[in-house]
Amino acid sequence: MDEAEKQECTIGVDLGGTNTQCAVVDASGRILGHSSFKTREFPHIEDFADKLSSAIDELIQETGTRGCVKGIGIGAPCANAKMGCIDGATDLPWHGTVPLAEMVGSRTGLPVRMANDANAAALGEMIYGCAKGMSDFIMLTLGTGVGSGIVCDGHILNGKRGFAGELGHVTFPFAADRICACGRRGCLQTICSSKGMVTTALRLMDQMELPSSLRNLPVGELTAKAIGEASLKGDPIAKKVMGITEEALGKACAEFVALTDPEAIVFFGGAANPDEMDISHITEVMEDNMLHIYKGKVKILFSRLPGAEAALLGAASLPWQKCQPI
Amino acid sequence: MDEAEKQECTIGVDLGGTNTQCAVVDASGRILGHSSFKTREFPHIEDFADKLSSAIDELIQETGTRGCVKGIGIGAPCANAKMGCIDGATDLPWHGTVPLAEMVGSRTGLPVRMANDANAAALGEMIYGCAKGMSDFIMLTLGTGVGSGIVCDGHILNGKRGFAGELGHVTFPFAADRICACGRRGCLQTICSSKGMVTTALRLMDQMELPSSLRNLPVGELTAKAIGEASLKGDPIAKKVMGITEEALGKACAEFVALTDPEAIVFFGGAANPDEMDISHITEVMEDNMLHIYKGKVKILFSRLPGAEAALLGAASLPWQKCQPI
Repeated sequence: MDEAEKQECTIGVDLGGTNTQCAVVDASGRILGHSSFKTREFPHIEDFADKLSSAIDELIQETGTRGCVKGIGIGAPCANAKMGCIDGATDLPWHGTVPLAEMVGSRTGLPVRMANDANAAALGEMIYGCAKGMSDFIMLTLGTGVGSGIVCDGHILNGKRGFAGELGHVTFPFAADRICACGRRGCLQTICSSKGMVTTALRLMDQMELPSSLRNLPVGELTAKAIGEASLKGDPIAKKVMGITEEALGKACAEFVALTDPEAIVFFGGAANPDEMDISHITEVMEDNMLHIYKGKVKILFSRLPGAEAALLGAASLPWQKCQPI
Repeated sequence: MDEAEKQECTIGVDLGGTNTQCAVVDASGRILGHSSFKTREFPHIEDFADKLSSAIDELIQETGTRGCVKGIGIGAPCANAKMGCIDGATDLPWHGTVPLAEMVGSRTGLPVRMANDANAAALGEMIYGCAKGMSDFIMLTLGTGVGSGIVCDGHILNGKRGFAGELGHVTFPFAADRICACGRRGCLQTICSSKGMVTTALRLMDQMELPSSLRNLPVGELTAKAIGEASLKGDPIAKKVMGITEEALGKACAEFVALTDPEAIVFFGGAANPDEMDISHITEVMEDNMLHIYKGKVKILFSRLPGAEAALLGAASLPWQKCQPI
């Protein structure tokens, strides 16, 4: 390609507990090149930073984009956009405060911006997905835990110290008998995360006599995915798990709308499969429980971007954001 | 005064269920002139708009500021900044949607901006009060109901339709046996408003044998003010009411910090008297109940601006705000 034809692009990194995905993305959101590696193979953060930096360098080489990369955006659990670090992530191998932006920046010579994974996904969804054109929405990410990204007036809400939007740790009476990984009781994520759904399934199988294909699985293999698939086949326990999860989400959404008066609440993540969840059930419960001024006005949507693309594209959009912190 | 010496000023209006207060305020927040009238003497909105417009005109005349007024800012319950109207206020004599900004604008020939009363108070507190210099805080107004103004990154959060920040209608298990004026159960304001405090006092007097000076009051004269004053004198029922209110506020604050990661939560309004409420009790309950990442980082503050000045000054600041809607 002629140098003059080359357009600016960015690197997006979706750093997850299992995999770290990297992509070179152009300004229109097209992925020019992609690679991934196992996060857990690098228990020392210095080794991880070396690996990530060399993976980025290889991608730049492969896509012929050297000299055109505007910057790197990293989405990660517990990432703090204001400080450019990962802080106390329980799902990652490194403890304490990890100044990853500085570590990757000094290795690659490129500017690095960070966002927590839910905020990165919200940005991706706002620019390329079902929240396109929306100025006010809430993204709930249903994965191992429940995260959130709150967009107000077109901007991600960061808060004073970069810790805004921990909606998975808002507590509810319907979860009062569940203890969260954070040590508190009743957090939304004790019901609506993939881990929460497994807990619900185990409790129902213990308490009820209903037959279920889930009883044939080793306990260690019981996952939100297995529950979702079983519910699609009509499995009575799995269907009850989905119903309990949907009801909790509906009640939580009814409270959350009173915070930011959003246009929509968007679900995203491994445990948010629109084929397995009943959107009309969530919407109905939300409508039944919300303050009258919001009734009939808030959409419930599910991300339709493939795989983790919302998080990857959102991370890639960070270097384009006008202000830092975003 | 020489015309050349005259500086730009604004009109602030604090429209309440009982009184409507107007003031001419200069750019530094100094009140140059002030007047008020009874809101309920004008049950027809056209008459109210006439009265408000003539009251503003008289104030301009008295203060010699004709030609210097940049605009009018009105703070009112259920006011919608995006639409310039009051929408379904239960404490005001007019029902439905009242396009007050347009009505006052056409009568006075001045530009008019509106904000709900809690947002106006938050602006006043941010510019002139205890939240001066803060970019991220939550204002909770404890009055007949509980309102809120959420400031993120220096801006009032309005939401898609202007209805953000209805934290008084977030529901909690500690209020599950109370029905709110909105028809739902468990809203924060059923405990922490002046009306909620009266309910708590009546229930305690009914359930407990404790002596109390409040038992000598006619039920119709039992107010949050009377309860607060009695608690200062050591009245055992009144002290219990304050304790229950403080505990509810502490638990609510512990949830609210997870939304916007604020620097402080500021209390304001007739039922938020810092002499009567135990700030350290509210803080202690909040600290005990909040997610670890926020611990020790969020201040609990009480407005110290006299009377309704925060609301009036905040309303007066509306014409100075850079963008509309604020």
